[in-house]
Amino acid sequence: MQLIDGKALSTQIKQEVKQEVDSIIASGGKRPHLAAVLIGDDPASHSYVRGKVKSCEQVGFESTLIQHGADISEAELLQIVDDLNQNPEIDGFIVQLPLPAHINELKVTLSIDPKKDVDGFHPVNVGRMTLGLPAYLPATPYGIMQMLERYKIETSGKSCCILGRSNIVGTPMSILLSRKANPGNATVVLCHSRTKNIKEIARNSDILIAAMGKPNFVTEDMVKKGAVVIDVGINRVDDPTRKRGYRLVGDVDFEHVSPKCSFITPVPGGVGPMTITSLLMNTLKSCKKEIYKD
Amino acid sequence: MQLIDGKALSTQIKQEVKQEVDSIIASGGKRPHLAAVLIGDDPASHSYVRGKVKSCEQVGFESTLIQHGADISEAELLQIVDDLNQNPEIDGFIVQLPLPAHINELKVTLSIDPKKDVDGFHPVNVGRMTLGLPAYLPATPYGIMQMLERYKIETSGKSCCILGRSNIVGTPMSILLSRKANPGNATVVLCHSRTKNIKEIARNSDILIAAMGKPNFVTEDMVKKGAVVIDVGINRVDDPTRKRGYRLVGDVDFEHVSPKCSFITPVPGGVGPMTITSLLMNTLKSCKKEIYKD
Repeated sequence: MQLIDGKALSTQIKQEVKQEVDSIIASGGKRPHLAAVLIGDDPASHSYVRGKVKSCEQVGFESTLIQHGADISEAELLQIVDDLNQNPEIDGFIVQLPLPAHINELKVTLSIDPKKDVDGFHPVNVGRMTLGLPAYLPATPYGIMQMLERYKIETSGKSCCILGRSNIVGTPMSILLSRKANPGNATVVLCHSRTKNIKEIARNSDILIAAMGKPNFVTEDMVKKGAVVIDVGINRVDDPTRKRGYRLVGDVDFEHVSPKCSFITPVPGGVGPMTITSLLMNTLKSCKKEIYKD
Repeated sequence: MQLIDGKALSTQIKQEVKQEVDSIIASGGKRPHLAAVLIGDDPASHSYVRGKVKSCEQVGFESTLIQHGADISEAELLQIVDDLNQNPEIDGFIVQLPLPAHINELKVTLSIDPKKDVDGFHPVNVGRMTLGLPAYLPATPYGIMQMLERYKIETSGKSCCILGRSNIVGTPMSILLSRKANPGNATVVLCHSRTKNIKEIARNSDILIAAMGKPNFVTEDMVKKGAVVIDVGINRVDDPTRKRGYRLVGDVDFEHVSPKCSFITPVPGGVGPMTITSLLMNTLKSCKKEIYKD
């Protein structure tokens, strides 16, 4: 069993991004610039955004943090988005979700210029991804694709079971792994709450991607010997032995499943650290105009 | 075994569309207007477009046919598209593919206003479909969804095997049948040229959708007893007994497969006639501003 070390891989990719930034600057180019819009005072959102800004600094990006209280109007937020769309200094930006209840999240997402949508949430990027065109990929699927590629895990012709059909993980993963590309060319089954024989499908699969958000859902009997297991879940379970009173566990019962696997991601330190890396890579691509040429 | 009669269903839906058009006109509304752009002299393209224009007449739509020789420049075609985008009389339009080799099809597709993209090929519509937002669905998948709905075929919790991952049939079908909707909520496996055990996957599936473009690919041993079989293939095979020298067959060996099925679509007269119906329904939706509100 080999551990897929998301933390180490993320550090390595950040170093590569930094080297590329250094060489862009050395040749007189523009420094990549990511902006983050943070509304309200949700502690988790603040923590995520702080992590993103810190990562920008690590790789030599310019970063801008725009913060407003939860009482901002939808019109004001849309104006901020429009300003970022227009600002040639900004290569990409994200609006941290969730937004306060009086603001229409979909409307905000749709107002972001797809060329600066480094979260990959805009329908234009989702559609381009689905059609196999160059696109900003959403963070988690992009991170998983990086893991598969960097660890040279063969996906072509493999059977792949994806647990969970969310718009940000399960559905895009199923699209990416089905398409004619590398990684890709897998035979994917997308499982969800209405699927009748999840255990059977899972244990017949060469690659298992768990993104249900259910702690320890994937048990030993659901995993084929030699399978590759990617655990996207990040669940808090009570743990009085910890100072903070909880610990993080994935959707996979790591202790019992891992001995059966060829590769497995841990939680924490697996898929999680790769999501920020994806954001940085998308921003770099935007700065280099790799996805949209003009 | 019940035959899914696409020809009869298409006729019925056209009558429903016509009734709706009549009532829009009676209440002083605008008559739906579809335009078709036809470039070059490919006989198949001419035949398809003629069929679309004729169907418009049958349901009381206005229709406009814009024809040009294969020597039209890309810039001229893009100007035609832009004019149609701007023209408030036009609710939707299609640019019949394939285009001559010197014209970039992708560029033309991307230049169509998504609000008038009644073929559902623009990334915005594909992305909205993938995200579960209101969208113009591409013709063939939309036609199949209509068949499933009108014949009250249960898809929720069923296993579904899709053969073929094209952008216009297999991939969108896998997205539509996986999503939380009705029809939908199926457990979908998307199979393609790299899939190793297609026969086994097919014969374990409650619903089988064949869109490979290979005549008689699906044989009796690949179909579960009681399965629903949707045959998207339209293949020409030589037949000296026919005046025109060929006959049309699907991807399914209808003669031997049909006795095992609960439902099956014939070829011709199955999925084929439903594609024009989809185009009419999308154009009606555009006229009623059902997908895009403004």
